[in-house]
Amino acid sequence: MRDSRSFVSLATDFGAAYTAICAGVVSTIAPAANVLVLSDEITPFAVREGAMLLRQALPYMPAGVHVGIVDPGVGTPRLPVAIETGRGDVLVGPDNGLLVPAAAGLGGVVRAHALENPAYRLPAVSTSFHGRDIFSPAAAHLATGLDVADLGPAVEPLPLDVPSAVARDGELTVPVLYTDRFGSLVLGGEPADLAAAFGPLPYGTPLDVAWTDPAPGSARVTFEETFGGVSPGAPLVWVDSSGWLGLAVNQGSAAEVLGLAGVETVVLRRPSAR
Amino acid sequence: MRDSRSFVSLATDFGAAYTAICAGVVSTIAPAANVLVLSDEITPFAVREGAMLLRQALPYMPAGVHVGIVDPGVGTPRLPVAIETGRGDVLVGPDNGLLVPAAAGLGGVVRAHALENPAYRLPAVSTSFHGRDIFSPAAAHLATGLDVADLGPAVEPLPLDVPSAVARDGELTVPVLYTDRFGSLVLGGEPADLAAAFGPLPYGTPLDVAWTDPAPGSARVTFEETFGGVSPGAPLVWVDSSGWLGLAVNQGSAAEVLGLAGVETVVLRRPSAR
Amino acid sequence: MRDSRSFVSLATDFGAAYTAICAGVVSTIAPAANVLVLSDEITPFAVREGAMLLRQALPYMPAGVHVGIVDPGVGTPRLPVAIETGRGDVLVGPDNGLLVPAAAGLGGVVRAHALENPAYRLPAVSTSFHGRDIFSPAAAHLATGLDVADLGPAVEPLPLDVPSAVARDGELTVPVLYTDRFGSLVLGGEPADLAAAFGPLPYGTPLDVAWTDPAPGSARVTFEETFGGVSPGAPLVWVDSSGWLGLAVNQGSAAEVLGLAGVETVVLRRPSAR
Repeated sequence: MRDSRSFVSLATDFGAAYTAICAGVVSTIAPAANVLVLSDEITPFAVREGAMLLRQALPYMPAGVHVGIVDPGVGTPRLPVAIETGRGDVLVGPDNGLLVPAAAGLGGVVRAHALENPAYRLPAVSTSFHGRDIFSPAAAHLATGLDVADLGPAVEPLPLDVPSAVARDGELTVPVLYTDRFGSLVLGGEPADLAAAFGPLPYGTPLDVAWTDPAPGSARVTFEETFGGVSPGAPLVWVDSSGWLGLAVNQGSAAEVLGLAGVETVVLRRPSAR
Repeated sequence: MRDSRSFVSLATDFGAAYTAICAGVVSTIAPAANVLVLSDEITPFAVREGAMLLRQALPYMPAGVHVGIVDPGVGTPRLPVAIETGRGDVLVGPDNGLLVPAAAGLGGVVRAHALENPAYRLPAVSTSFHGRDIFSPAAAHLATGLDVADLGPAVEPLPLDVPSAVARDGELTVPVLYTDRFGSLVLGGEPADLAAAFGPLPYGTPLDVAWTDPAPGSARVTFEETFGGVSPGAPLVWVDSSGWLGLAVNQGSAAEVLGLAGVETVVLRRPSAR
Repeated sequence: MRDSRSFVSLATDFGAAYTAICAGVVSTIAPAANVLVLSDEITPFAVREGAMLLRQALPYMPAGVHVGIVDPGVGTPRLPVAIETGRGDVLVGPDNGLLVPAAAGLGGVVRAHALENPAYRLPAVSTSFHGRDIFSPAAAHLATGLDVADLGPAVEPLPLDVPSAVARDGELTVPVLYTDRFGSLVLGGEPADLAAAFGPLPYGTPLDVAWTDPAPGSARVTFEETFGGVSPGAPLVWVDSSGWLGLAVNQGSAAEVLGLAGVETVVLRRPSAR
């Protein structure tokens, strides 16, 4: 049973207005809920970016109901789901993998149910705005105490498809997960991947970063604990606040300075001794 | 009489910071109010876009006080108004037509009063920021229970000037109302206009869309119930979640893919049998 | 002692998601706090722009805890601070001058303390996200009633370095502080500076505005009380709602129309009588 002032977060690729409509639906059904827009500016249709955001952010939210909507399949038969986590949250959104990494970070999936019960949808369900008509009403009813199982049949959530980092001796190939607002790249690898490729890596060690697509390029960077470890304008590899590897420029945009727009994979190497 | 936790929404063309200043003014005067930023990113000075947003969004908000500000005339003698609706909301903003379509969708205008009583303004009223100095204080006092009539003299709100769809036999001319964040065009017509031009129109029917300004162009599209009715990258005409006609591209931007930037009117036709 | 529903505002250069993570941390520690995002779109690393925003906005917020984060020095030894003001607010952020002009406008600095007590930080403090790990927890604990002095040792906040307006006879040189979302320039001068340069200046007086960097340019403008004093598309100098001088175009963007992108200083003169 939730208390009378439940916490509901919303993360979408809708922009301000459509996300606020969802917030309005939540407040209409659950007037005492504390509603926070976690993001309304996920890149449209970028399921992986949204999943990384939820995985990163939700551990810092109060336990509550968290709506995540990046839904290229709206209007097709993909399921809407609610996923209860070990921490006691319920994650609500499309069953396209978006919610699953976040659930893993909140104690794992306890149970998941499809949002099929018409009692917990708006009376008229459109084909293009399930955020308003299906996800937000479900979240609001959950915030007022509804049990997840009352929403519909139990389902097994689909996983998110994310490429893995590949560590070979002296070389780490990592996917670029997304580029943040500062132009810093978040890489799909963790400190353990660095260690697998290079062994213990002291701060201050130089690394070469190379890429081939959409055009070949490379840069000499430094592995650092903080941005302040390099001069303004200089690039670094560091471990970001969520434990992901990052490629950044101190007080600048790595995407712009290094010419990384559109790059999907980078390779890190120790500079040769020559 | 409103309850102690009233709902106040804000929709402006101010950006985040100036809109938040308005929210701060509301919370200072009405600390118990639940304040939601419905939008802070309406295109600057786009009264029609703002009006369409309010018309679309407010039915999904709790009954409450809704501030809408797109105000090219700030600093001129246009009136600030509060409009009480049949549903029990009060809409607050400039008397330039912005609020009127939304009021019509909330049970109609019950009464409207100019915001003239200095007791419900900030002590110093600037010439350029009526959102902060006039509209937000009025909204906050309304949220704490003030009667609309205490704000000032009764007025008749000015209508919004929107062009109408024109249906001729086999042809529908519709204005483009605005382009949303996904690059989809919202058209100033409804399903009844489609029926007037074409009779019953089954999903899957092809249509030709043509425009002449700012440069001539045309596209073959399909009338569909959902985005998923066409392949990714393919265009469609559909009825959006507010009942307006829309011109979109599945998982893409119609404005970009079809070259519709700056287009203000489109003509829909049945493809000729040739 | 604060009441049980304290007000916490957040102003950052983080974008929506990272700012919402801060809001989530506040709500986790202080569930009853009313949390407002004042801005999540300050230009990255623009300390002066952030300082002007806080100075302008905070007087309109309820007295409370106000977090401001524009922090090019994150990860370096600069101090995190909390500044208590004469009005009873506490401002929380990096000790880089960002908070000081706002504190001056809220009754001045009463006392300031460094955020060093680990009891009021998150258990693990990252090197790159002090907003989440240091500033937000401190703000939340202050919102629940913590005394500023419990956060750490007393400090003297560093001032913000802002260039001054220079008035000579018949000429006023003023820095451009920032360009707002409408393309209007906020200038680092006040009506008193105008008077020092020109004596009493009636509305309607023409002025010449000139600049040399990054490319020479000039424009004839009018000093007006309101935007409506000039025709749509025409430029004006006016006093904005915070008492700063501004350079704007009625219903347009001064930055675009006059070609002012990148201009850091302008000179105002009375047109010569020739």
